[in-house]
Amino acid sequence: MATLEQGHVVDELYEGEVSARASTLPIVFTDFKAVRLMPPIPQEELLDCVAQWMTIARCVSRGIGSEEEKTAVFRSTKKRVEKYCASSEHIAQRQICILDTPETRRNERLEFAAPPAPYQNIRSNPAGKTWEERRVLFEQAALTAFEHCYEEGEQQAPDEIIHVTCTGYSSPSPVQVFLSQRGWFRTGVTHAYHMGCYGAFPAIRTACGLLAASYFSLPTRKDRIDIIHTEYLSLHVDFLTQEPGNYVMNTLFGDGFIKYSAYPLLNFLSSNKRGLKLLALEERLAPNSLEEMTLRPGTYSFDETVSKNVPEIIYVHIKEFMIDLCRQAGLDFEAEKEDLVYAVHPGGPAIVSKTRDALGLDESQMWISRDILRQHGNMASATAPHMWQKIVETDAIPSGAKIVSVAFGPGLTVIGAVFEKI
Amino acid sequence: MATLEQGHVVDELYEGEVSARASTLPIVFTDFKAVRLMPPIPQEELLDCVAQWMTIARCVSRGIGSEEEKTAVFRSTKKRVEKYCASSEHIAQRQICILDTPETRRNERLEFAAPPAPYQNIRSNPAGKTWEERRVLFEQAALTAFEHCYEEGEQQAPDEIIHVTCTGYSSPSPVQVFLSQRGWFRTGVTHAYHMGCYGAFPAIRTACGLLAASYFSLPTRKDRIDIIHTEYLSLHVDFLTQEPGNYVMNTLFGDGFIKYSAYPLLNFLSSNKRGLKLLALEERLAPNSLEEMTLRPGTYSFDETVSKNVPEIIYVHIKEFMIDLCRQAGLDFEAEKEDLVYAVHPGGPAIVSKTRDALGLDESQMWISRDILRQHGNMASATAPHMWQKIVETDAIPSGAKIVSVAFGPGLTVIGAVFEKI
Repeated sequence: MATLEQGHVVDELYEGEVSARASTLPIVFTDFKAVRLMPPIPQEELLDCVAQWMTIARCVSRGIGSEEEKTAVFRSTKKRVEKYCASSEHIAQRQICILDTPETRRNERLEFAAPPAPYQNIRSNPAGKTWEERRVLFEQAALTAFEHCYEEGEQQAPDEIIHVTCTGYSSPSPVQVFLSQRGWFRTGVTHAYHMGCYGAFPAIRTACGLLAASYFSLPTRKDRIDIIHTEYLSLHVDFLTQEPGNYVMNTLFGDGFIKYSAYPLLNFLSSNKRGLKLLALEERLAPNSLEEMTLRPGTYSFDETVSKNVPEIIYVHIKEFMIDLCRQAGLDFEAEKEDLVYAVHPGGPAIVSKTRDALGLDESQMWISRDILRQHGNMASATAPHMWQKIVETDAIPSGAKIVSVAFGPGLTVIGAVFEKI
Repeated sequence: MATLEQGHVVDELYEGEVSARASTLPIVFTDFKAVRLMPPIPQEELLDCVAQWMTIARCVSRGIGSEEEKTAVFRSTKKRVEKYCASSEHIAQRQICILDTPETRRNERLEFAAPPAPYQNIRSNPAGKTWEERRVLFEQAALTAFEHCYEEGEQQAPDEIIHVTCTGYSSPSPVQVFLSQRGWFRTGVTHAYHMGCYGAFPAIRTACGLLAASYFSLPTRKDRIDIIHTEYLSLHVDFLTQEPGNYVMNTLFGDGFIKYSAYPLLNFLSSNKRGLKLLALEERLAPNSLEEMTLRPGTYSFDETVSKNVPEIIYVHIKEFMIDLCRQAGLDFEAEKEDLVYAVHPGGPAIVSKTRDALGLDESQMWISRDILRQHGNMASATAPHMWQKIVETDAIPSGAKIVSVAFGPGLTVIGAVFEKI
């Protein structure tokens, strides 16, 4: 094809291009900016908090009133929390925005006597507030996150914003509210919603496409696409359900908010920044695994389930996937696996370990996944961009390094990308 | 820029290119296939049905038991239905899938004695079933729609599927369930959710991008993106709320399910099909209009509100928008407006009229919007593709005709595209 042949010619302009099929318009992701809405809280404190509120929810739901019985429920709840939680060795701290109420901020430490925001009504309804009421909290937090993502005096509107979340949907969306308030009326809006932990990958695929289409398929050029994740996972904490999986969720997830931008390589090179050039992206469904992970908006919160088979399913499929993904980027996985940088979505500690074992890697190669999990917990779709930010900002990872990043979600979906640090 | 210059050279290969800036990889939308899950029901019958069930919901909620009082409530409800509804002159029939229950199918006519699916419990809870329970109905209908969209023996999986909806979210999503059941494990999935009535436009922008990025920014070529809309609006019918806007919703919306595909022009030309080549796409927010239209998942259903100002806001902004949109496609709107084909989202009869007046068009030029509204009602994001299908299949609209299509949604968002029929 004429276009492709010409693509190759154009590409010789770019030095150091090594991908299997050189691309005409390489896309770079850069300007990663994570924002916090409140300081992270140590995991030990959070585990106490979860045990306490799960105890109260249980006692209210069962009409338990005596101190003796309450103490017994607390003991058994605490035991289950300890059994199913990611320990503070794996997760040191998490941002839990539902604890950011005037009462809990008192004395600059957690005051467990004040219920978290979606459970102000816990003494009358141990299921807490409905999803409809929680949604208002989502709207406020997401809009605040947007405001923190952009400097106050920032003049330059992005051509498009892609909003990624699996924890709250409302229209007008936080993007539309933010843009309207800023007077940025000509920025396009794309919602990349309800894709679970792997949502960053469809988002970067879409960003890449918005740029490429603007150069080659549509009349108006676009040169900057912003991607913003607002994952308010603590909003969906469920203090009532006694399934082991719910104990895992309540002690694993942290809230995450992060923005980054996609540029065509040529525009990026004129800056003095570091970023990640996208070399390949691949997605696949694992057969017979539809019910292993679910995410369904319920009456009180988004009900998420993850079966204990997930790490094993990933173990079975990840290697073939990784070989195919790397081949697309011109990399021989087996030959080069020692030199690659890994950013595996730390859905939980076991997923990282199983991926490591399936790929025959050393524990030291999983440090980015471990580090992000330790500092933040699992932030759903916001997790991968936090890993990418780490890679961009770590001087010990040199320019030219190849990064493979993978994530997992309902389907089960296995999705991944290869980047080159530039 | 080298790439753009070369783009122009390559483009001279395509005969008849007239857009302002010729594109290297034009994208064509074709193979429109609308599917029905049940036969449409005449509007007159539906208005009776709405009046009856709104009466029952009101009587249950107020504890009204006497036949005399019930009759009075029915009379006043019927009056309000007649006041706020789109008459059968504007909407002849609608597909209302919540009436497709074994009881209502009895005798091949509507049997109003049987409550619609989400209101089986109406005598105990006049708000009907919760959104959580309705979601199961969404999952079933959406999966059935997917199965109808593809022939049973169809072997050729699309490279990607974009699923568009603002009426139900679940993971694994209907796309993932369908793909898994078909054994199409390598098709990428993108959710284009919660964008309201204008959702088709971000979806075609994304489809265009997935193709363009695969040619110019990523190593693996993609040549067919399928877009599938599953808008199950009747699922969110609210028989209890007495606001005028709710009467409008209950009598305006129809369910819509439609699939179509995006191809690069060169691949398309080798077929013998008709389609719509995308020439331009533009999106804009109207200032100070955030609360004029909302879509928020609630406890029982998705709560949608549309203020009566919406047609007027569209009236104020649509002309400047249209001029800008057309200019991008190399068209002088004022000079060519008599020759353009219009596909304006018929959010309601007034929106079509206001757009006609603002643009200085003749009523006869609105026939596509009127026809789709009459045959289907407002199907949210599925409406625009039904108009596009009509244009493709209408022989009286010749090859080379330029089509302008616009839609509106929360924000308020005004979004539109210019196509050329080929």
